[in-house]
Parts: sequence; C-alpha cells; structure tokens
Amino acid sequence: MSSIEELRARLAEIDDLSNAAELLGWDERVMMPAAAAEARADQLATLAKVRHEIFSDGRIGALLEEAEPEPGTIDADLVRVTSRDWEKTRLVDSELRAEMAKASMVAERAWVDARRESDWVALLPHLERNFELARRFAACYERFPGFEHPYDPLLDEFEPEMSTAQMRTVLAELRDGLLPLVAEIGDPDDQEPDHFRGEFAAGPQRELMKEVLAELPFPEGSWRVDETEHPFAFSVGHGDIRMTTRYDEDNLAFGLFSGIHEAGHGLYEAGVDPELARTPLATLRSLGLHESQSRLLENWVGRDRPYLDHLLPLLAERFPDPFASLSLDRVCAAANRVERTLIRTEADEVTYNVHILIRFELEVELFEGAVTIAELPKTWNARYRDYLGLDVPDDARGVLQDPHWAAGAFGYFPTYSLGNMIAAQLFDAARRDIPDLETRIAAGELAPLGEWLREHVHRHGRRLTPAQILERSGCGELSAEPLLEHLRARLAIRAPSSGAAGGA
Amino acid sequence: MSSIEELRARLAEIDDLSNAAELLGWDERVMMPAAAAEARADQLATLAKVRHEIFSDGRIGALLEEAEPEPGTIDADLVRVTSRDWEKTRLVDSELRAEMAKASMVAERAWVDARRESDWVALLPHLERNFELARRFAACYERFPGFEHPYDPLLDEFEPEMSTAQMRTVLAELRDGLLPLVAEIGDPDDQEPDHFRGEFAAGPQRELMKEVLAELPFPEGSWRVDETEHPFAFSVGHGDIRMTTRYDEDNLAFGLFSGIHEAGHGLYEAGVDPELARTPLATLRSLGLHESQSRLLENWVGRDRPYLDHLLPLLAERFPDPFASLSLDRVCAAANRVERTLIRTEADEVTYNVHILIRFELEVELFEGAVTIAELPKTWNARYRDYLGLDVPDDARGVLQDPHWAAGAFGYFPTYSLGNMIAAQLFDAARRDIPDLETRIAAGELAPLGEWLREHVHRHGRRLTPAQILERSGCGELSAEPLLEHLRARLAIRAPSSGAAGGA
Repeated sequence: MSSIEELRARLAEIDDLSNAAELLGWDERVMMPAAAAEARADQLATLAKVRHEIFSDGRIGALLEEAEPEPGTIDADLVRVTSRDWEKTRLVDSELRAEMAKASMVAERAWVDARRESDWVALLPHLERNFELARRFAACYERFPGFEHPYDPLLDEFEPEMSTAQMRTVLAELRDGLLPLVAEIGDPDDQEPDHFRGEFAAGPQRELMKEVLAELPFPEGSWRVDETEHPFAFSVGHGDIRMTTRYDEDNLAFGLFSGIHEAGHGLYEAGVDPELARTPLATLRSLGLHESQSRLLENWVGRDRPYLDHLLPLLAERFPDPFASLSLDRVCAAANRVERTLIRTEADEVTYNVHILIRFELEVELFEGAVTIAELPKTWNARYRDYLGLDVPDDARGVLQDPHWAAGAFGYFPTYSLGNMIAAQLFDAARRDIPDLETRIAAGELAPLGEWLREHVHRHGRRLTPAQILERSGCGELSAEPLLEHLRARLAIRAPSSGAAGGA
Repeated sequence: MSSIEELRARLAEIDDLSNAAELLGWDERVMMPAAAAEARADQLATLAKVRHEIFSDGRIGALLEEAEPEPGTIDADLVRVTSRDWEKTRLVDSELRAEMAKASMVAERAWVDARRESDWVALLPHLERNFELARRFAACYERFPGFEHPYDPLLDEFEPEMSTAQMRTVLAELRDGLLPLVAEIGDPDDQEPDHFRGEFAAGPQRELMKEVLAELPFPEGSWRVDETEHPFAFSVGHGDIRMTTRYDEDNLAFGLFSGIHEAGHGLYEAGVDPELARTPLATLRSLGLHESQSRLLENWVGRDRPYLDHLLPLLAERFPDPFASLSLDRVCAAANRVERTLIRTEADEVTYNVHILIRFELEVELFEGAVTIAELPKTWNARYRDYLGLDVPDDARGVLQDPHWAAGAFGYFPTYSLGNMIAAQLFDAARRDIPDLETRIAAGELAPLGEWLREHVHRHGRRLTPAQILERSGCGELSAEPLLEHLRARLAIRAPSSGAAGGA
C-alpha cells in the first residue's frame, strides 16, 4: 500500500466514525426515547474520543509527510487540507477538549433554565468558564501560521482560513450600508398583513413540504425530512441527507421557509463530488459557504416572486383560506415583511444581519479585552438601542436568547451574515449565467439553478475556499454590496404592495 | 486507576461502539434513504473493525490477568465472561472474519434472487463458500476448552457454553414427543376459521399495538416501535429499546403477535440490571434465553385465554367485524389453529419446532460430514416428508426459504426451539410463584409477570447461564417435557372449539 493509499484508508475510517456520530446526533434529536439520554451522551463521547485518537496519531502525520501527490489532483488537495487539520488537532490536548465539551454541556443545560427565568446571574459563571476555556483554546495556536488576532482560532473553527481582520472589514461594509436601510423601515402596520399567520393544520403543511422537496434537484432516494423543535440538516454519509423542519399551526411561513432553508443545506451536501466521499474534502467546513446555500434557497429563491408564483397554486390548493383569494403581489409582500424586533431567529432578511453584527462585535470585543462577560447585558442592550432603536426589556429577550455562547461556540455567529453576502454574490452570478433563470423557477424548474450551484459550489467540497469559489464563479472578491442591493430591492417590494394593501 | 477500573473503562467504550453499530443497523432497516446503502455498509464495517481492534488488544488480556475481583461480585462475573470472549476473539484472525463477512453479504444478496427464482443451483456455490469458511472458523477453536464436536464453535456463537451433545439430547426428547402430536393434527378445515384473516386497516392496527405495548411493564420513555418488513427488537443502550412490527392488512394476527413477540425481547433488554450497563454482562448473548422471552410473551401470554380475554374488547372496539360478535372460546381457537405447512415463519406453535428440528439435524449432519451442501435439497425434502408428511414442491418453499445459511449463520436455528423449551419451563415456574397470575393477566395487568421475569431472568444479564437461571427459578434442568405438555394443551383448545364452530 502506498502512503497515499494508507492515508486514504485511515481517513475513510475517520469519516465513517464521524458519520456514525452524526447519525447518533440525528437520532437523538428526532427519534430517541427520552430515557436514553445518558447512554447516548456516553456513546457520542466515545466516538469523538476514538476518532480523535485515530486522527491525531503520529502515523497520519508521517503519511502526510511521505505522500507525494501530483499537483492539481484530489490527492494534492487532500494532503493540503488534512495537513492543516492534523496540525491544528495536535496543538490542543485532549484534556482541554474534554473540559470544553463538559463545560459547554453543563452550560447549555443551565442556559435552558436561565433563558426561561431571564436569569443572567445564573448563567454568568458558566459563560465565564466557557470563555476562559475558549481563551485557553485560542492560546494553543499562538504560533500557528496565519493566526494574528486572539479571535482568529475561534473563527477558524467555523470559517477555516478566514481572518478576523477580513471578517471585520466586510461586516463593517455591511453595517455601513445596512443601518441607514434599517432606520427607514417605519411602522410594520403600514405593510401588507402577514397572510402566513392564521390557522394551518400540520397535515397539509407536511404534504406541501414533501411536494416542495420532491421538486428540488436531489438525487433519487437520498434524503428524508422529519420534524424537530429546531430545524436542521446534515449528511450522515454519501446518499444520506437528513433534514428537519417544524410545522407551526399558527404560522405557515415558519415550517415552509425553514424547510426550504434546510433543503439548501441538504442540496449542498448532496452535491459534493462522489469521488470525495469518505475523505475530509467531503466534510464541508466553511459554515459561511454552507449558510450561503440555505439562505440562497430560502431567500433568493423561496421568498422571491418567481418561486412564489409557482408556489401560490400549491398553497391555495391546501389552504384556500386565505391563499385562493390573494394576488401574487400581496403574497410576495407578505413573505417579505420587515420589522425591527428583538429576537434573531424571528428576524426578517433585512434586520437579521443587524442581530449578527451586534454579536460579532461583542465577540471580538470580548477577545480583545474591551468588554467582559459580566458586561455583556449592558453592552448588548446599548447596541440594540443604537442599531435597531429597540429597548431590551429583559435578558431572555436580550443576551440570553441564543444558545451559542452557552455551547462554547464563540466565532459561529458571523458566518450567518457571511452566508448572506456569499448568497447574494452567487445568485447574481447564476442569474447572469442562466438567462431564463426566473422563468424556469416560476415554472417550478429548480434543476438549472441546482446544476449551476453543483458545478460552481457543491461539487468542490473543501477543495476550494469560499474566496476561490467566488472568484471562479465570476463574483470577484467577497463584498457586502450585492447583499445590500438585494435588501434594498426587498424593501421596495414591500412599499408598493403596502400601498395596495392600504387601498384594499 | 486500578486494573479493574481501566478494564471497565475500555469495555465501556467497546460497548458504546457496539451500540452505535446497533443504531446504524436499526436506522438502515427503519429510516435510511435507499441511496445510502453503500456508505452505511462502510460505516458498519469500520465500527466492527475499530471495535475488534480495541477489544482484541493485548492490554485487555493483561488487565483481565491482573484484575483480582472479589468472588461473587459483578466484577468477578465481568472478568470471567470477558476472559472467555477475549480468548475466543484472539483465536480467529481478522482476515478470516472479514472474508466471512464479505462472503455472507454476497451470499445474502444472491439468496434474495435465488429464492425468488427458486434457483438452488445459483445459491449453491455461495453456500459452499460460507460452509467452507464456517469450517475454517470452527477449526480455529481446535484446542479451545470444552469444544468437542465440530459444530460446537458454531453453536457457541449463538448459545454460549451449550454443547452440541446437550442440544442434541434435548431436541431428540422434543422430537420423540412432538412427532406423534403432529401426526394427529388432521384437517385444518375442521378447526375454527381464522378470524384474524380478513380486512384490517393499518391505522387502527397501529393504535392497537401502541396500546398493547403501553400496558407492558416497560420503564417510561424507554422504547419505540416502528415498522419493517421483518420485525425485530434490540437495545441500542440503556433506556433505548427499538422494536418493529409489520401491519398486514389481510392478517391481523401477523402484526399483533409479531409486535408482542418483539416486546418480549424488548422487555428482556429493558430489564437488565442498570449496574451492568456499558459492560459485556449487559449484552445478552444466549439467543435461546432471548427467544424464551419473546416466545413466552407471544405464546404463553399473547395466545392464551386470559390475555385474549383482556384483548377481545380492544379488538372489538377497533374491528367490530368480526370481533364484536365472537365468543372468547372462538377467538382462542382461532388464535391457536394448527396446520402442517411448508414455511417455518408461517408455522403455528406446534409445528414450528418440527421446522427447527429438521434444520438442526441437517446442520449437525453437515458438520459431521454425513451430508454435503449439494445434497441439502434432497435431504431437506425427505425430512419434510418424514416429519410433516409434506411434499416440497420447489426449493423456494424448501431449502431456500430462510436467509440464515446464506448469512453464514450456522448454529442459529436450534436456539429457536431452545427458547420454546425454556419459555415453557419458566412460565410454569412463574405460574407456581404467582398464584393469581391468570386473573391478573385477564385484567390486563402484566406487571406481576414482568417483575417475576425481571427478578429471575432479565436483571442477571450474562451473569448467569440459561442453565443457572432455570435452576435458580426452580425449573430444574433443561427439559422438553414442559413444552410438550403446553403443546398438548394447545391442541386441546382447538378440539372443542372446532366442534363448536362446526355446530355454529
């Protein structure tokens, strides 16, 4: 066996163990009987430990050294990407990893109670512990090439090879364009009423979702959709996409657009070149790029006029009240209402990014020492006042609303807005390359867009960075401007319809 | 860390990996999208390989040597049972195991086609290959203490510490009592009609099954029931019982009694002492004992008059036609019809064991060299003629009907009848110990029986052998006589009702 063959065999086993863990995680959230929680935690910890031991073994390092792949081949990318992962893994000792896993598990449990009770003081020591561990984690990478800012190693966990400086530049550009737009939003009561709120039985919602997903360009027999409190999507191996959504009987938009969002993640996983299966190149590590695919499908397709044109008869068939009597204009306007609100997960497309900007700024300030964990509520509330003009009435609707920090996931938030920016750039490129794109979508044909995305984004897996993917798709460098332009257009949809609604 | 602590930690990880593999297997049969088959096979192979490497490591052997557990403790049983497993594992090299796994996978696929086409010649080389590998496997144990017969190592895989000689003695006793009973069966048309055949929608069957299972003494929130072509049950860790059944809309008995059967397996898994969790003592290895629990619940409870008395109103509520107008006598008679047929999986309680006796005899003859694989169809058909008085019209309904030999599982079949014999002995003991057992069951109270089984059977896990469990439950030695007595009583149920039906 050559070095590269042995390397591939070992990496394939590691990938199998990762996928087994993914399936256990899926099952835990979708299928598992409640009494099994402790056993499942043990099983997941063991899989992580065994996987870590096999990957961090010196033999992998030796094989990476010995391998002499031909430049430009999959093997060359495999060695490059794996070498970086392997070197990173070796810098953090497994005891620290175990401490982090344990602390975040404890903190996440405490967060559930703290949010319910709006009790910041109860969560504070847990967040301080997580933050301290995150700083120790970051300190392990002191001499890692390319890391300059103390937040770099955190960000790198979710957005490999993107620096804090790059993220800060592009998010500042976004902020400068976005805050003036947000200031103009005005009174939500002047907009089209939200026709997606009302009474919508779960049964027909479920059928509608099956139909919507069946029209998407998934390989046959390669996915399933289930129901969970918090929707998610991931792959548990080649040919196996697991998506979830939740059917809210008061709010049709929630389940529908969550389902389409998760399908965007699912299509990305499904589109990876099968030749990358069972290698680290198939494990999509850039959350920004991943999120670009879900946002693109949810917002650039799902909430856009052509797709809603296709969707309206399906909606009207299952929910004649109100959809049988609504014009496409009014449905578009309802699907694109904009409102300054306190909760990130309920935010519309325009204000969503403001929630992210605030979190990103606070995270960077934390790691720069400009703010302490204890000062977070005060700083949070001030920033909501500044950026959204909102008073935060309690911490449950403020700094306690998200689980990320309790989960120890510092560095995760900015990838959401990164995803939005990349989506805007990619969709513009797809529209340029597919002249009849909107006509096709209005006819319910998602295949041309799916093919474009597979060709330019999905199939590459981790062989290309997000920057390379943008460059090669003709999008140029990462930029906030296409997203800002898209959001301006969104705000314009709302205005005429809002007038029409007012006149009705 | 003491030797025993380190041993326990390593064994806990191995147990976690086994449970992860069980969950992957469950998911494959119940949930997995079809396109994932190849990826799942890789994942399962990797989990098996990693598990084997960790278990067969010399360090486990050293720890087993060093450990000095106090006699009579869980640790003492742990060391005893694990030492035997470890020594057995080390005798077979992993290449042979891999060859066996691969050959049986190929053969199982070939079996599906061969059975459909009734094409013995197509399967023959695959079975010859499996048999050759099984003989090589058995030969690895040449000097293993206690193994005397070439079939011993095969049987030991499914029924640890039971010899071919012991199995042969007790099954000969069963055969000598059973064949005269079978000869008396007579014409099935003289019996009560099968009221469980007709039209029974899956929806109400599903609800009925949920209700039946909810009445059983499972710990709360510890199980789920799903649907698969071939029903099964197993545990994927403490607090996590997975059962399946199948609702046949023409045959209510199939789904109902399969579900109760699998619940018997499930209750056994659920009843293991929680202190044994994550040790090999919680992995129930005696298939005979396992099967005794499913058969006991299906046949000694489910098809018996007291339980049917409880069940009849539930049946009549969901399926008034025919159950609202049937007497308990007639329902009992219908649930206990007896008929000499060709297919094992469709056989009633009485004739079922004849199917097993034939398979066991052929397996032993194969390993003794008295018959070759090529001669199996001829020998099979002759034995069906002798024992059941039936002519086998084609191999699909003969030697090709079961997947076991294609799966390389020589030694599995006799555990089914062993389970029946043990069930009869245990149920007699439970009836002695719980004076109002039948009244309680007729009232739908399964808890007293459940507690008796947990106390005498379930909680021990692998700490006791089946022989020890029988002994300590006051059943004496393993014997076919209690089963024969039970079957004679079954045939008597049928006779008076059959008369009643004739007079109706």
